[in-house]
Amino acid sequence: MNSNYTKEMEVQNVASYNKEALATRQPKHKVSPLFINRWSTRAFEPYEITEEEINTILEAASYAPSANNFQPWRFFVATTEAQKALFEQFIMPRNAVWSQKASAYILLAGDTSLPEGKTNNNHAFDSGAAWASIAFQAKMMGLSTRAMGGYDREKAKQLLAMPENFVPHVVIAIGKPGTIDLLDESFHKVNGPTPRKSLDELIISYRVE
Amino acid sequence: MNSNYTKEMEVQNVASYNKEALATRQPKHKVSPLFINRWSTRAFEPYEITEEEINTILEAASYAPSANNFQPWRFFVATTEAQKALFEQFIMPRNAVWSQKASAYILLAGDTSLPEGKTNNNHAFDSGAAWASIAFQAKMMGLSTRAMGGYDREKAKQLLAMPENFVPHVVIAIGKPGTIDLLDESFHKVNGPTPRKSLDELIISYRVE
Repeated sequence: MNSNYTKEMEVQNVASYNKEALATRQPKHKVSPLFINRWSTRAFEPYEITEEEINTILEAASYAPSANNFQPWRFFVATTEAQKALFEQFIMPRNAVWSQKASAYILLAGDTSLPEGKTNNNHAFDSGAAWASIAFQAKMMGLSTRAMGGYDREKAKQLLAMPENFVPHVVIAIGKPGTIDLLDESFHKVNGPTPRKSLDELIISYRVE
Repeated sequence: MNSNYTKEMEVQNVASYNKEALATRQPKHKVSPLFINRWSTRAFEPYEITEEEINTILEAASYAPSANNFQPWRFFVATTEAQKALFEQFIMPRNAVWSQKASAYILLAGDTSLPEGKTNNNHAFDSGAAWASIAFQAKMMGLSTRAMGGYDREKAKQLLAMPENFVPHVVIAIGKPGTIDLLDESFHKVNGPTPRKSLDELIISYRVE
């Protein structure tokens, strides 16, 4: 633990807007570069991720807010070749084309169980906050994340012997972002920082009597 | 838009761990202070939030990742007294005791509609990522956020004339964090940075054949 974190957190791409991101994203307000520069590449360069890096990222996620502080997020991590191969049995083959070059996978599941046999209905929303935390902490460390919904949830539950009360949300591919030539050509056109709807479309006006 | 953002983003509490947070949160890894220092206070001091601040926070959220980049998050914002009073018709009275002192409310809803009459089943998870982005951007600006599940969803849908295909998730109270004396005494014991489960409880081990 280090109480003077500045140098370590000021890694590439979070101190100022990145030209690559600005090509498709023109923020109208002074949004932190963390949000503008983060995007989900499919191009990864060879990189052996450390257990310390994984733990740092997941500990960041553990501090996400959740309803009643129930913290429903659970993580299944694949870093070894054997673990990654297991995950690639349930990841859609079209995704595995690029994801196999990532350094690790994290399957993020929501634990729906609560004390007294109750069910946590906020597990998806809260897990989404944990996912964003993973993406931001990784970005600050110069790593990139991409969440996949394209995988066989039933097969994942079975192969990972997931408890019945867990709902698998996404499989996150994490690694060192690489240049486009490292990515299968069939993905070149879709890979890049995606644009967003304007606030006019997102902020809904309503009438006050 | 400013490409040299450093000074503006380095406001209180994100450059190094905050003593108040360290009292209940002892990160084992070099997690960014952004995650450790962010917590959801109920104590707000009087502060007139600007439209620019709201827009900056919501624009940050707009850059959250989402399945197929569908961006299902929608925002209903209350900043005027009349708008806040409308929201307080559906916020649970016990929450309104503290939330009425916040500067603004944002109701975050998920739009479940997709082209061709399909339904977006990822709206809750993706909206959770937008919520985390709101919380982090606000924190960087010296503002605090607290999401409430304790409100009448049906009444909110009715009073805000929400489209049928919207699912209301949380009402976020946002404002300038204040000292504990500004908060009703009945909340003093529960207000503060909450602890978290250890990674041992969150990372699930599994067997690889």
